Amino acid sequence: MGERLVELAHGGGGTMTGELVALVREYVGNPLLDRMEDAAAVVLAGRVAFTTDSFVVQPLEFPGGDIGRLAVAGTVNDLAVVGATPKYISLSLIIEEGMPFERLRRLLESVQATAAEAGIVVACGDTKVVEHCKADGLYINTSGLGEMSAGANISIHNVLPGDAVIVSGEIGLHGVAVLAAREGLGFASCAVSDVAPLNRMLEPLVREVEVHAMRDPTRGGCAAALHEVAAASGVSIRLDGNALPIPEVVEGACSLLGIDPLEIPNEGKALVFVPREEADRAVDVLRRNPYGQKASIIGVVEPKGGFPVTLATALGERLVDAPRGELLPRIC
Amino acid sequence: MGERLVELAHGGGGTMTGELVALVREYVGNPLLDRMEDAAAVVLAGRVAFTTDSFVVQPLEFPGGDIGRLAVAGTVNDLAVVGATPKYISLSLIIEEGMPFERLRRLLESVQATAAEAGIVVACGDTKVVEHCKADGLYINTSGLGEMSAGANISIHNVLPGDAVIVSGEIGLHGVAVLAAREGLGFASCAVSDVAPLNRMLEPLVREVEVHAMRDPTRGGCAAALHEVAAASGVSIRLDGNALPIPEVVEGACSLLGIDPLEIPNEGKALVFVPREEADRAVDVLRRNPYGQKASIIGVVEPKGGFPVTLATALGERLVDAPRGELLPRIC
Repeated sequence: MGERLVELAHGGGGTMTGELVALVREYVGNPLLDRMEDAAAVVLAGRVAFTTDSFVVQPLEFPGGDIGRLAVAGTVNDLAVVGATPKYISLSLIIEEGMPFERLRRLLESVQATAAEAGIVVACGDTKVVEHCKADGLYINTSGLGEMSAGANISIHNVLPGDAVIVSGEIGLHGVAVLAAREGLGFASCAVSDVAPLNRMLEPLVREVEVHAMRDPTRGGCAAALHEVAAASGVSIRLDGNALPIPEVVEGACSLLGIDPLEIPNEGKALVFVPREEADRAVDVLRRNPYGQKASIIGVVEPKGGFPVTLATALGERLVDAPRGELLPRIC
Repeated sequence: MGERLVELAHGGGGTMTGELVALVREYVGNPLLDRMEDAAAVVLAGRVAFTTDSFVVQPLEFPGGDIGRLAVAGTVNDLAVVGATPKYISLSLIIEEGMPFERLRRLLESVQATAAEAGIVVACGDTKVVEHCKADGLYINTSGLGEMSAGANISIHNVLPGDAVIVSGEIGLHGVAVLAAREGLGFASCAVSDVAPLNRMLEPLVREVEVHAMRDPTRGGCAAALHEVAAASGVSIRLDGNALPIPEVVEGACSLLGIDPLEIPNEGKALVFVPREEADRAVDVLRRNPYGQKASIIGVVEPKGGFPVTLATALGERLVDAPRGELLPRIC
């Protein structure tokens, strides 16, 4: 007997859709979701943070994670980097006809485990099915709601000259791991994605340190994130080439492929901007968490100069361009 | 010179993604979205309603609407039928490489117009691009946030025997219009989708009438929605066949195709459950709104009997099955 597959009729809104919904609830069900209202009634105090992301990563499973873990961690991290405590998440699946139920179960289990790790509740969801070749196995959208920390005023517009730039760990691992899995790059096969929910690491930081801004360097990598912060705050950012924590496998893959490690997406890292005098303490707080053990200061913020982002190396200063986007499609 | 098309690189997170984001902001931009934080800080009072939906309708444009209007109205209606006032929406696009920019502009204009009609703000968004044949032009996910009416207690679990069942207008138009456009069914070519945001129609209803439950009969049509309510509240529902407002074009298309009009999706209708003595007043309130002018009482709620949903006709009573889902894929 062959394995059971998702059919187009599972998306038609009838009893077969009910079967698919029951499967989702088996993994992420809770009293709120189980009410099956058209909208869930959620409880949130104070200012609310709201974010959304669709995930189209290929392959669906890769060393260190899968699209399920990515979809939860990505949205949790978008909440965490604005200083919010993630509370609720939505889960919307666009499934390609022919997806084996067993694989779907595996991915839902990953959604559930990551949501549990982050301490968030799946409040609402949706399932759609499209014909063979009209999707790529599975696309997931998650939207997230969090409670903003009362005292915090964290924004990419708030960075000041003199701030230190911190990264919470080694960069480039997610992008290289996905790329290696997709393209069968043997030389990078030991790369493991860093995909992880960072809220438990960032919440103490926001409580204990004066944080000006945070950004998770996903698509476009650190280069894109730093350019966005520089533009929003009207500053320049100078990185210290010797301080950048680039693992050997990323360094090697990047030099072979001709890609800047700063352009490689990360899914378990935060860039943090704090006043210079708070920087060491911020690093200490990050290092208390397993995901932050290799946190380090990598640069400094300066008044707006000639170029938004530069990198100081032994050979002099080089400009860090904003990536255009051609090189790394569908990493998240 | 050929028309400009969306390329895979527009999804890579670099400056080309920035161009795509700028296009979206041209249509739905506002001070909140324009801050470009990883999560938007939104202001909500009291209990919050949270919902999500992905839209995969084919074709993207059909008589009476398009995927843009559908994505906004669908999520607005999910908030409105739980008695919430829609406030914020997210907008996440999965675009197939090769989509003409002109078409994307047209669809974004429709998103904007529908959001303006509903009075909601696009608080956050996301854009992804996938390879040719890995999507079907465009998929849109919207999640929505609304403020629950303080006094209301509206839930599909709250329906009682003796309640009247009201529908806010003619049924079946969305499904037949999309089907006719997709399959080139000449005999149904005059069908026009009813897709519309219903919050302005339902808010006065909730204020002025004691409403027990509401549901928008989308995928699976009225049949699925009524079965869901009957199951959640532990009741049976008896419809009056003579009272069902089925337009001629829907009647005709359904009898030719062998589909029950009750199984056809609607995108601008609400099923409303109120105490019998409130029913006439509820119909009056609905009829004050342009989208509710053909509102009527179509049935009655009874104690849980032999079958959850039945239809009284001149020829006797027939059972209304819960649809399985094979017949109408990708209508929303």
